[in-house]
Amino acid sequence: MARPHSPELHLVIGDKRKSSWSLRPWLALRATGYPFRERKILLDRPTSRGELEAASPTSKVPVLLDGELAIWESLAICETLAEWFPGARLWPADPGVRARARSAATEMHGGFADLRRELTMDLTLRTQVTPSPATQADIDRICALWRDCRARFGAAGDMLFGTWSIVDCMYAPVATRFRSYGIRLDPVCAAYVDAVLATPDMRAWTEEALLEPRGPV
Amino acid sequence: MARPHSPELHLVIGDKRKSSWSLRPWLALRATGYPFRERKILLDRPTSRGELEAASPTSKVPVLLDGELAIWESLAICETLAEWFPGARLWPADPGVRARARSAATEMHGGFADLRRELTMDLTLRTQVTPSPATQADIDRICALWRDCRARFGAAGDMLFGTWSIVDCMYAPVATRFRSYGIRLDPVCAAYVDAVLATPDMRAWTEEALLEPRGPV
Repeated sequence: MARPHSPELHLVIGDKRKSSWSLRPWLALRATGYPFRERKILLDRPTSRGELEAASPTSKVPVLLDGELAIWESLAICETLAEWFPGARLWPADPGVRARARSAATEMHGGFADLRRELTMDLTLRTQVTPSPATQADIDRICALWRDCRARFGAAGDMLFGTWSIVDCMYAPVATRFRSYGIRLDPVCAAYVDAVLATPDMRAWTEEALLEPRGPV
Repeated sequence: MARPHSPELHLVIGDKRKSSWSLRPWLALRATGYPFRERKILLDRPTSRGELEAASPTSKVPVLLDGELAIWESLAICETLAEWFPGARLWPADPGVRARARSAATEMHGGFADLRRELTMDLTLRTQVTPSPATQADIDRICALWRDCRARFGAAGDMLFGTWSIVDCMYAPVATRFRSYGIRLDPVCAAYVDAVLATPDMRAWTEEALLEPRGPV
């Protein structure tokens, strides 16, 4: 039977302020236009662990629920949404370009550990830091990738592959980190960060993040 | 234009003895039956860095080359092969089951950092270790996932989703680690490790690994 079965999907997420992995499939799901309901589990609370264990096969967010079917891992959710909603064009249409887009998205899924550890996502933060050499290497690689995508595949719009795709969903949390930590960027990457952060869905997510209760760290 | 364009694909890999990320798409590519040529870059040599920079957009292996098109990241290569070769059935046919398979494969792509760091793949190694608590937690999660897949989706064969899929490609290096480090397993997981390691493609890869020159560490 075709998916989704449910007239309304459920997406279990963490705090919008800091759950970068939740933001990614949330953006993809918004791009489909399909009705969905959020269930938020505030992280780093005394009750978080129990709620996560009950909600997720991995005790982590995000999880997409289509009735009984639970799908975890941000990129797996995005791939699944691309398959379920071909009209949303979550991947580029050309097979070769799509392969490159998958490389770029997957590099984010498995990589950039130093950047992720050192510059954690916090949508309320504005500061200026000098990254460690390891994190600067991550930043340099991301910026080289972004410039390459923009130059080769970006002509049809402001996004990495022109129009909005899963690659932008995957790198959107990095765009927020570059802003939060005052990372110096070349003009191409700076313009891309601005374009991502100006999308209606990023604005909506960020506004809700700013209203969240601040729990214990 | 449909992909692949080339009558013969090229896969750039590292040492078969230890490049776990190379093994994954190599197994997927073998499962397609499409002609391909390997190009091996021996890692941790004085010349490795230059060769990697010339061969790969990320200076890492593996990379799949279809003429001018370079695709990197193991999971992106596997996804691309699944799309190019639907007859190889690299993902389960049912959309819901396929979504679960993607979750399982992607969890491997991005996770289990402690296991990967502590129990590095070495196909020539046979030892017995007591894993650290963090690595044991990774092992426990992998085994819970494997048992769940085998119980729910494995009826049609010996593999996690019955017949061979990308999920098995992604976890095959873990199977070799469990053998190399003498990890104690429940009967379901032990049988799965045996089944993976007994496949003709895993045997072929391992035989070639044992013949590789041993370089400086």
